[in-house]
Amino acid sequence: MQVLVSEVGPRDGLQSLKRIMPTEAKLRWIAALAEAGLAEIEVGSFVHPKRLPQMADAEAVVAGARQIPGLYVLALAPNMKGVQRAVAAGAHKITMPLSASHLHSVANIGMTCEVAIEEVGRICRFRDGLPAADRPGIEIGISTAFGCSIQGDVSEDWVFEIANRLVRLGADSVGLSDGTGYANPTQVKRMFNRLQRELGGHAGGAHFHNTRGQGLANVVAALEAGVTTFDASQGGLGGCPYSPGATGNIVTEDLVYLLESMGLDTGIDLDKLMQARCILAEALPGETLYGHVPNSGVRKGFYYADPNAARSTDLLISAEACATLA
Amino acid sequence: MQVLVSEVGPRDGLQSLKRIMPTEAKLRWIAALAEAGLAEIEVGSFVHPKRLPQMADAEAVVAGARQIPGLYVLALAPNMKGVQRAVAAGAHKITMPLSASHLHSVANIGMTCEVAIEEVGRICRFRDGLPAADRPGIEIGISTAFGCSIQGDVSEDWVFEIANRLVRLGADSVGLSDGTGYANPTQVKRMFNRLQRELGGHAGGAHFHNTRGQGLANVVAALEAGVTTFDASQGGLGGCPYSPGATGNIVTEDLVYLLESMGLDTGIDLDKLMQARCILAEALPGETLYGHVPNSGVRKGFYYADPNAARSTDLLISAEACATLA
Repeated sequence: MQVLVSEVGPRDGLQSLKRIMPTEAKLRWIAALAEAGLAEIEVGSFVHPKRLPQMADAEAVVAGARQIPGLYVLALAPNMKGVQRAVAAGAHKITMPLSASHLHSVANIGMTCEVAIEEVGRICRFRDGLPAADRPGIEIGISTAFGCSIQGDVSEDWVFEIANRLVRLGADSVGLSDGTGYANPTQVKRMFNRLQRELGGHAGGAHFHNTRGQGLANVVAALEAGVTTFDASQGGLGGCPYSPGATGNIVTEDLVYLLESMGLDTGIDLDKLMQARCILAEALPGETLYGHVPNSGVRKGFYYADPNAARSTDLLISAEACATLA
Repeated sequence: MQVLVSEVGPRDGLQSLKRIMPTEAKLRWIAALAEAGLAEIEVGSFVHPKRLPQMADAEAVVAGARQIPGLYVLALAPNMKGVQRAVAAGAHKITMPLSASHLHSVANIGMTCEVAIEEVGRICRFRDGLPAADRPGIEIGISTAFGCSIQGDVSEDWVFEIANRLVRLGADSVGLSDGTGYANPTQVKRMFNRLQRELGGHAGGAHFHNTRGQGLANVVAALEAGVTTFDASQGGLGGCPYSPGATGNIVTEDLVYLLESMGLDTGIDLDKLMQARCILAEALPGETLYGHVPNSGVRKGFYYADPNAARSTDLLISAEACATLA
């Protein structure tokens, strides 16, 4: 069975850092990730550059990523203005965050849930009016789907009311997102089962953070529910620097190792993933890169899920060793 | 549903450290763990003190732990000599490691698997000859059950041949142990399902390490297979200091949070668990204590699985803050 690992580090990871990674370094990193077999990468965010200066070069990054053969280029856009920029830049697919928590929605994007849902409808109509060649996919990740750091619990029925409305409004897929590490495996299995049941082919993937160390546990639960697309970020980039081990997104390296060990084919080469990690380490000196497998290496006797995969695991090395490799 | 978290930090954690924790500090820590609701603690190892000087005070620690009302006191013993010492000290239950890997068995305990299995039989007969009041439980953890860092893959059929023989020889329970973070969730679910099927009431718990970051993912898979006992160590003690995040055992704090979030009752108070962590931090200054939840805190709106539990989550604090608390 194949599972899609969707890399979000260049967007979700880099936007959480104080410093700004130069466009050239971003593109070298993205190219290395693609070379490792990451077929889908979220490369940037079309928000106002004053709000997120780390993402001010989104146009250039999307344009550069589009030059990489075979890569499916995603970009985040929170509103019509951002979507228009993403389309002009040539993103294959646009991901839109939409919060199920009223308080979080207002705090995060300045819109109530109702207004944000209507905005998605308006955007889907805009997208449908574009020439076929320029028409991007529209994917919504329902954030705070598993709970909200402002309001606490979020009604599951409300989450699914939103999900169904978004599909009716024209979204291609709707996934569930846990940006604060609130989800637990019981909830994950229940909610993704329901998502598949209610949305069928429009059911999207899982976006988990590892804030409470439960990220990969939630992946196992989501797999049980039939989820086949997982967001992850290389090095767990975007974690809280004052909390040792409190990574941001689940770590791509550890996720790929987990999936391949379970016999699930990701198409990703762990050695080449480590080379991409080295580029990241070099471009962000001093930044903490998370992950266990980059330090421990794979188990003795490890093999990829696809027995014919011409991929190796010789190079697994610690982040510290990157300096010698780079 | 209730799940038993069996704390192994005072044995598996402390034996991995270079320094020796004073007996008095061990007992203060163990008492705090018991106070937090840890009903079963593996407090020491009856190996030769020259081999593991960290465990040279095992007699005193077992005797001290036996004074804690309600606590079920476990001790590890690798052979008859150790078992005799553990019995004399008053351990309620003795855990014996037995490696399914021939190479690991010889390297680790200097016995082939066959000899080690016979030794268990001899020990069970010795145990059966004791007066009822002194008769400890005998629990075997089959180590390298999921793979071995020396020989790589280990035959699953061989693991279950061992497990069945050990039960026939008189072991009360036989669990599966992954001391090197080799297990993956698919394998865990398959093997624990088989363990329950073949051993019935003698099927023991799971002992996972988090070396490759897959520890809690494996817990979710084991829960699916019906496992209800999990070893864990506070602060993931015993990890590799040169690998950031490469914890040893799965972290008790994160495991308890995972289980309670899933609606599984552990009987453990997270606040009091943090107080025990502070004692540990104070007794081992400079030692890295792992875990996400101790830094992130619980989610907003968290509640224990048992709605009547008189336990709180107010105190969750970073290890650094322990100094002020202590």
